[in-house]
Amino acid sequence: MRELTADDLGDLARGAAILGTGGGGDPYIGRLLAQAALDKYGPVPLTALDELPDDAEVLPVAMMGAPTVALEKLPSIEQVGNAVRALGEYRGKAATHIACIEAGGINSLTPVVAAAQLGLPLIDADGMGRAFPELQMVLPTLIGVQATPTSITDEKGNHQIVAAIDNHWAERLARSATVDMGCSTMVSLYGMTGSEARASLVDGTVSLCVELGRLVTSARNGTAPADAVAARLDGRRVFDGKVVDVARRTEQGFARGEAIIEGLDHDAQSRLTIAFQNENLIARRDGVAVATVPDLICVLDRDTGEAITTETLRYGHRVTVLVAPADPRWHTSDGLALAGPQAFGYELEQ
Amino acid sequence: MRELTADDLGDLARGAAILGTGGGGDPYIGRLLAQAALDKYGPVPLTALDELPDDAEVLPVAMMGAPTVALEKLPSIEQVGNAVRALGEYRGKAATHIACIEAGGINSLTPVVAAAQLGLPLIDADGMGRAFPELQMVLPTLIGVQATPTSITDEKGNHQIVAAIDNHWAERLARSATVDMGCSTMVSLYGMTGSEARASLVDGTVSLCVELGRLVTSARNGTAPADAVAARLDGRRVFDGKVVDVARRTEQGFARGEAIIEGLDHDAQSRLTIAFQNENLIARRDGVAVATVPDLICVLDRDTGEAITTETLRYGHRVTVLVAPADPRWHTSDGLALAGPQAFGYELEQ
Repeated sequence: MRELTADDLGDLARGAAILGTGGGGDPYIGRLLAQAALDKYGPVPLTALDELPDDAEVLPVAMMGAPTVALEKLPSIEQVGNAVRALGEYRGKAATHIACIEAGGINSLTPVVAAAQLGLPLIDADGMGRAFPELQMVLPTLIGVQATPTSITDEKGNHQIVAAIDNHWAERLARSATVDMGCSTMVSLYGMTGSEARASLVDGTVSLCVELGRLVTSARNGTAPADAVAARLDGRRVFDGKVVDVARRTEQGFARGEAIIEGLDHDAQSRLTIAFQNENLIARRDGVAVATVPDLICVLDRDTGEAITTETLRYGHRVTVLVAPADPRWHTSDGLALAGPQAFGYELEQ
Repeated sequence: MRELTADDLGDLARGAAILGTGGGGDPYIGRLLAQAALDKYGPVPLTALDELPDDAEVLPVAMMGAPTVALEKLPSIEQVGNAVRALGEYRGKAATHIACIEAGGINSLTPVVAAAQLGLPLIDADGMGRAFPELQMVLPTLIGVQATPTSITDEKGNHQIVAAIDNHWAERLARSATVDMGCSTMVSLYGMTGSEARASLVDGTVSLCVELGRLVTSARNGTAPADAVAARLDGRRVFDGKVVDVARRTEQGFARGEAIIEGLDHDAQSRLTIAFQNENLIARRDGVAVATVPDLICVLDRDTGEAITTETLRYGHRVTVLVAPADPRWHTSDGLALAGPQAFGYELEQ
């Protein structure tokens, strides 16, 4: 796969939403924006991670904030490109490649928007292999790449640069800027060289998303889409049921809450509870944890195989819940310290 | 007066506190910081406003936040210089001159700190002729100078650049960054050319502060210091009394509240109420407004003539209240819209 065209966007969005584990924003928003950008600027070349020159200037771009807000306050194409441009200007080096910082609905697509607008190639990779809710929770953090300087743009034309002493301060300062700019912004951050990108990004994520999206579409005609996806991700189906309750609140810029799913068929008599903070974090079956962050907990529509984000999950949804292993680097002690259950305030055993 | 030495700092702080109309931070904090900077780096040359070259690169610097917090969390000399340096780097032009954005305790002295540390001259002027609580409330706003890009530094080493679409957004974004960075930061903003500085700053403020400080010190031996100050500022003494109540709260990064003063001597039987938001905004005698922002309402210690800031005002203080006219540009319709009573939510007639 050498370039992304408008025809790929549906599958890219569909697959990214699965890896987004409920977070990363509504893929529909991201798709609309990417569609408009590709219509205007043409296809985006994809660069494989191992083809990236050592001295490439890689600038990732992402939406920051509450997906619940992004649903109502659409970003503009210019806002996305401007975040990359502002960071390049501040660093004194313009981007040569755009990267995806997380695999998730809107944030798999914002880099496509930036790449199209700026006429740059997109790297076929991402910084997590999934989505996470906080800015410092990316694999480049583990090799010492700094989140800042970070640029932040809003849809009104304001922008900010945050230069923090560490990635936790970067998260704090960028988050409060985002809340103040209306709870949904575009950020460019974790600027890195080609060799740093090769050493820290998850290889092949963009193509994987497109492939997962195609699996879902084609499986609709035959075997259960969830099984096809689980097989591709070396994961397993852990629960089938109906959503009976969702408690959701937007606090400190996050969509936090808990969903309760009552079992159907072979899972009848059981109940699965999923706690989320933008992303699905912990799944408990009848009170016992069956999967925890950093592993992927994916909630799919039971009929269509489409991923359901935490902000669209609601009473009555028939769902299949999959669990799949995270990139092995997330299971190292540094990885767990950064994004394991305890990083989210849970005292579970991993 | 061609340079500021350590010997001038006491009078500068004393005079600035008077023009600060209760705000601008505790002069003691500013004086400690400036003393340390001059001890380390030597005297600071003063440049008269009319000697400033057209193409001078003027960077003002100030403390932003709640003075109540600055009292407990001292800034460092480096934090002040770094704010100027960060803005110069972002603008791609290093400062040639430092300016004072407001006449007020700490903020008449932070520019001295920056000038000493960076080895640059300080302009004998300021941006208000007094102190005001919000970032956009400066005379350069009236001629279209933009507050941003604004740099913001904290004592930990974090910094941010805010590039806003207008000065109200600059205030909002810089304020929330300040709150997040611990409610007291150093900012450099309103970068301007020499000709813009000449067209918008208030001439001679630094020397005036030193002169007012000397008046207070020398008047202690004879006539009431308050009368000497009032005469120099073309103002008048409006009340003598004892503080009987102060309601003060720190909210949204400001020290807000109200002081009640019971009259003494010729003012016995009367009561003066002063509403403040960092600075004194409205003085009401027995319920009737006798002075309102933008004019200067200065609360002085009745015995020593020293100004009392809103964060140190307390029960039992014997005070003399002076009123003096603001720079005439504050009384134009644009000036009043920016910093008149209605800009603070009051419906008074001016």
